[in-house]
Amino acid sequence: MARDRVENTTARGDERKALILDTALRLFERDGYEKTTMRAIAKEAGVSVGNAYYYFGSKDHLIQAFYDEVSERHVAQALAAMRPHRDLATRLSADLHTWIDVAEPYREFATQFVKNAVDPNSPLSPFSPESKPTRDKVIDVHRRAVLGSTAKYDPGIAENLPDLLWMHHMAIVLFWVYDRSPGARRTRELVDRTSPMVARIIGLSRFKVVRPLFREADKLIRDFLLPGDEPGGA
Amino acid sequence: MARDRVENTTARGDERKALILDTALRLFERDGYEKTTMRAIAKEAGVSVGNAYYYFGSKDHLIQAFYDEVSERHVAQALAAMRPHRDLATRLSADLHTWIDVAEPYREFATQFVKNAVDPNSPLSPFSPESKPTRDKVIDVHRRAVLGSTAKYDPGIAENLPDLLWMHHMAIVLFWVYDRSPGARRTRELVDRTSPMVARIIGLSRFKVVRPLFREADKLIRDFLLPGDEPGGA
Repeated sequence: MARDRVENTTARGDERKALILDTALRLFERDGYEKTTMRAIAKEAGVSVGNAYYYFGSKDHLIQAFYDEVSERHVAQALAAMRPHRDLATRLSADLHTWIDVAEPYREFATQFVKNAVDPNSPLSPFSPESKPTRDKVIDVHRRAVLGSTAKYDPGIAENLPDLLWMHHMAIVLFWVYDRSPGARRTRELVDRTSPMVARIIGLSRFKVVRPLFREADKLIRDFLLPGDEPGGA
Repeated sequence: MARDRVENTTARGDERKALILDTALRLFERDGYEKTTMRAIAKEAGVSVGNAYYYFGSKDHLIQAFYDEVSERHVAQALAAMRPHRDLATRLSADLHTWIDVAEPYREFATQFVKNAVDPNSPLSPFSPESKPTRDKVIDVHRRAVLGSTAKYDPGIAENLPDLLWMHHMAIVLFWVYDRSPGARRTRELVDRTSPMVARIIGLSRFKVVRPLFREADKLIRDFLLPGDEPGGA
């Protein structure tokens, strides 16, 4: 019975947390990130300011939660979208299109997010240790994109491939933030152009002359972008 | 004589413009970009506010001028640094190290610059039409890095190579903004690691199986990042 009570409290807490986050995202969209205060979010959500701060230590924490939320939904939808396909280019493209589907409603706000994430000292950077749990989930989707495909490649690069695919993903995200076309049409075109290229590059790993470059590229990511990460992600 | 007068006026104007820019950069470093007003810059430089606005329409224009200034110095120093070398990797690395030399004093401020440049609607983006004259000068340095080297590559990719090298450069700039190591030591290590890789990738263009990827990559840059640019840059 004590356990039941704890579980109920947690469920209520999760609900309230989700309510505050949803409210915040709505206000960020409507009034802009800078102008929206924690006080305004709390008021609109019908909770006390203290309660809002209990769940989210600052507005930045709300952005981190937003990143987690978008990633969570992307992971679920990407797995479903890739399932019917075996061709690697098609799977990669399906993977990234679902990311756009999920993120697109928040494009205005995402610009703000990237502006923060580009700050070297920000825990909001997708490369930060704070972002690792969420990053690992997304990298794992890219791993499954490869594993479920019929693609042929040098087995020696299998472990490193998901990180390289995640870099491709990050490049697409960066382009998407710049993209002003309706419905992110240009970003979708870019995904359709780069996914077959990436699949072809992966295929080239079977050629001996190309192979060392994959290992070096992965080592580069590990040494310079994700120091402290264990090989193989999650 | 009329012509002399014009030239003298122009020279005086250039001097005053340079003075305002130097003053602005100093104040941006000291007080931060947001807190520094045009009024404060004018006062510190000993010119009227109207005069400061005559040369720079807004604080953003000062950033553009800063980008131009850094690029100008980089171009001059890179050409000198590459001159004694023939090996492509060494030339690329010398090229990029001089960029770090020139930019390093402004690293704090550059973070601010990148935050603005990442905004899709900003004329300050290195990909914007407004940045084209300066971008072309920098791309041309990368062209010379290849032309002065002993590197062997498919002649079919020669025209497109400078743009691809510029993308490498932009990736280094992005890393540098994140870099917190003293004297940008990590960025310099990254340059030393990626320059031989890039040179090796260029060498791979001689293999028939790899060649189409270069053309596609270049077409991608042209179609998605620099629409409206003529092939071959400047």
